[in-house]
Amino acid sequence: MAKEGADMTEETEFMIDRNVGQETVSVESRAGNAKEMRAVMLTGFGGLNKVRVSRKAMPEPQDGEVKIRVKACGLNFLDLMVRQGNIDNPPKTPIVPGFECCGIVESVGGNTEGFEIGDKVMAFVNYNAWAEVVCTPVDFVYKMPDEMTFAEAAAFSLNFVAAYMMLFHVASLQEGMSVLVHSAGGGVGQAVAQLCATVPNVTVFGIASSFKHAAIKDSVTHLFDRNVDYIQEVKKISPDGVDVVLDCLCGENTGKGLSLLKPLGTYILYGASNMVTGETKSFFSFAKSWWQVEKVNPIKLYEENKVIAGFSLLNLLFKQGRSSLVKAVMDKLLCLYRQKKIKPVVDSLWALEEVKEAMQRIHDRGNVGKLILDVEKSPTPLMASDSTETSEAGEEEEEPEGDNDSKERMPFIH
Amino acid sequence: MAKEGADMTEETEFMIDRNVGQETVSVESRAGNAKEMRAVMLTGFGGLNKVRVSRKAMPEPQDGEVKIRVKACGLNFLDLMVRQGNIDNPPKTPIVPGFECCGIVESVGGNTEGFEIGDKVMAFVNYNAWAEVVCTPVDFVYKMPDEMTFAEAAAFSLNFVAAYMMLFHVASLQEGMSVLVHSAGGGVGQAVAQLCATVPNVTVFGIASSFKHAAIKDSVTHLFDRNVDYIQEVKKISPDGVDVVLDCLCGENTGKGLSLLKPLGTYILYGASNMVTGETKSFFSFAKSWWQVEKVNPIKLYEENKVIAGFSLLNLLFKQGRSSLVKAVMDKLLCLYRQKKIKPVVDSLWALEEVKEAMQRIHDRGNVGKLILDVEKSPTPLMASDSTETSEAGEEEEEPEGDNDSKERMPFIH
Repeated sequence: MAKEGADMTEETEFMIDRNVGQETVSVESRAGNAKEMRAVMLTGFGGLNKVRVSRKAMPEPQDGEVKIRVKACGLNFLDLMVRQGNIDNPPKTPIVPGFECCGIVESVGGNTEGFEIGDKVMAFVNYNAWAEVVCTPVDFVYKMPDEMTFAEAAAFSLNFVAAYMMLFHVASLQEGMSVLVHSAGGGVGQAVAQLCATVPNVTVFGIASSFKHAAIKDSVTHLFDRNVDYIQEVKKISPDGVDVVLDCLCGENTGKGLSLLKPLGTYILYGASNMVTGETKSFFSFAKSWWQVEKVNPIKLYEENKVIAGFSLLNLLFKQGRSSLVKAVMDKLLCLYRQKKIKPVVDSLWALEEVKEAMQRIHDRGNVGKLILDVEKSPTPLMASDSTETSEAGEEEEEPEGDNDSKERMPFIH
Repeated sequence: MAKEGADMTEETEFMIDRNVGQETVSVESRAGNAKEMRAVMLTGFGGLNKVRVSRKAMPEPQDGEVKIRVKACGLNFLDLMVRQGNIDNPPKTPIVPGFECCGIVESVGGNTEGFEIGDKVMAFVNYNAWAEVVCTPVDFVYKMPDEMTFAEAAAFSLNFVAAYMMLFHVASLQEGMSVLVHSAGGGVGQAVAQLCATVPNVTVFGIASSFKHAAIKDSVTHLFDRNVDYIQEVKKISPDGVDVVLDCLCGENTGKGLSLLKPLGTYILYGASNMVTGETKSFFSFAKSWWQVEKVNPIKLYEENKVIAGFSLLNLLFKQGRSSLVKAVMDKLLCLYRQKKIKPVVDSLWALEEVKEAMQRIHDRGNVGKLILDVEKSPTPLMASDSTETSEAGEEEEEPEGDNDSKERMPFIH
């Protein structure tokens, strides 16, 4: 069956792409052909105009794979970097983006013991998550607790596993320690704050844009605006520095973060969102900034008794074969969820067709918690005349492709 | 009393230096003046000729200090780097080198609860350890177990505390992990091997000169010659790499060490003995190599899920105020010692007057385990004619100072 589906892909995509361009895809046609599905397609690397919803051949599970009817997907900052091609070894386009989703098991391949049709599951996927149906190896699939909603599940896996492994595997967080987290209002930031609260007497310093402070002030011990000199503010409270710095920004902040560490403290770089500086920059200007990251002298680490670490959950899963370790971490996290000690924070739900607006929102760092693509959600109606807000920031390089998919919908209704 | 002693120092040193030059110091005169003591002096930065035994005013304990009649001192590779001035912020000379010793409490200053005259103790000292008498803050003093010899005690503190903190605080060593240690035959290397054996199923890869292999082969799982391509040898046994690399060499080995790490593995730089490349190099050629250390790109750590750490126990103690943490570690180590799970390996004992030969031995990496300065040991008689072995390697820059202290004794009798 998978073979048959693959044979159909090219022609089908061509046909559907034109349909999408004419905004004629109805709810009926979406659910119509059982051998096709809707998916977000990345047609090439670049701005928001490279992303659109297409129809694609339905995947079928290979040996060791589970086929999931997707209910919701997680959207991460990394997805923006992928869209811009600003990652190591970018994939070939066209490709369906997305690394995590949840839904209901629709069928299983061989050697998938433990999973049955009808199971509510969440899963990591090595691309291809933003679609109505996903197939992924059983090693990356986890059963959802009964009480967990699909929106929560889509917000859970990547953020909480990354936060847990950084705090407890890389940094060995213990009672009485202190943690500084950049982007405290983001999905990982909120997961970090909740996991820190499971250890007695941990102080959390959060950095976030000031407009988020009211929403997240109860989740951290101290909160600073990213535009103030937070280094000095933290040192006023803790002159000796902090035990752990979690940084998804990189660039100029690496040196700052290292300077804030206590002896034996650990600085963890888990993303490089400063690499995404604007929607209109070219691939090559990103590639340049990638290499401009400040390098670290090991002798300085020796003299100062400091630790610097990098953490990429997706590389750990898909390049480095650590799925059984991640499964063990997921078991611990689901235990904490059932004990109501952690609960994913959902910022907003978006239809697949609204992925551009969702991407713009995470690019503008407008979110508090996780952005979710809700596969069953209908797009908010298009606003006929007001298409300026997103296009100014993200569509300047719009190519004349003959579709009007760049018209914007009312943003940020959630 | 301390003031009185300090006033005497300059004149006394001048007198005694001449005595030492004429090899006229008898056992009687050493023990003679209660206001003076013998000590190893570093007269300036450079080769072995900068080190000699002098008489110095007896120190007296300040408030919070313990005065120790020293029985034995530890000699570390770092002492060679100090002698060459090849460290960050080198001290002013003349100075008494040495960072660790053991002996018997002779008197105590105020606020030294827990210690009494007659206690057998081991201690860290911020320089000044290589002397008959040492005063050091009570925070750096630890009681010796009854069954521990002074030679063992002098070999214990620095090596085992450093090994313990690197394995368990920085790297979180756990059951089933693997550790690669450079200089496996050295004091830290042997401590690492013993501590790894306290955790079930830990694989230790040791790198050492082949002439040491017979002596240390039982202490590690796999042993490789430092002159072979041990990277390939380790990968043959463990294609995925190792969890922890402990490196005291730095320089070209940093990249090699990082390449051997498993995902989530930790590379720890705890010394820079490649910085001491020869006894005849000038300070500036060392300073240059210091900065030639390969820097690390944090983005690479992110992509590979790797951790790089620096560890300097002396900075932790004397610059960064972590004495209470070290005391807690020492308690755990003494518990392991009493359970006979660890036992310091002593390479050889040397009189203070033999410090040059001892330094040459550690420079040549001739030792298996720790070199000890035994304060009560008499020097092995001078060999009148055979002074070539050490002087070739270490005395080429010998200054014509009018003493014959550079005549060599029979080396390596132990």
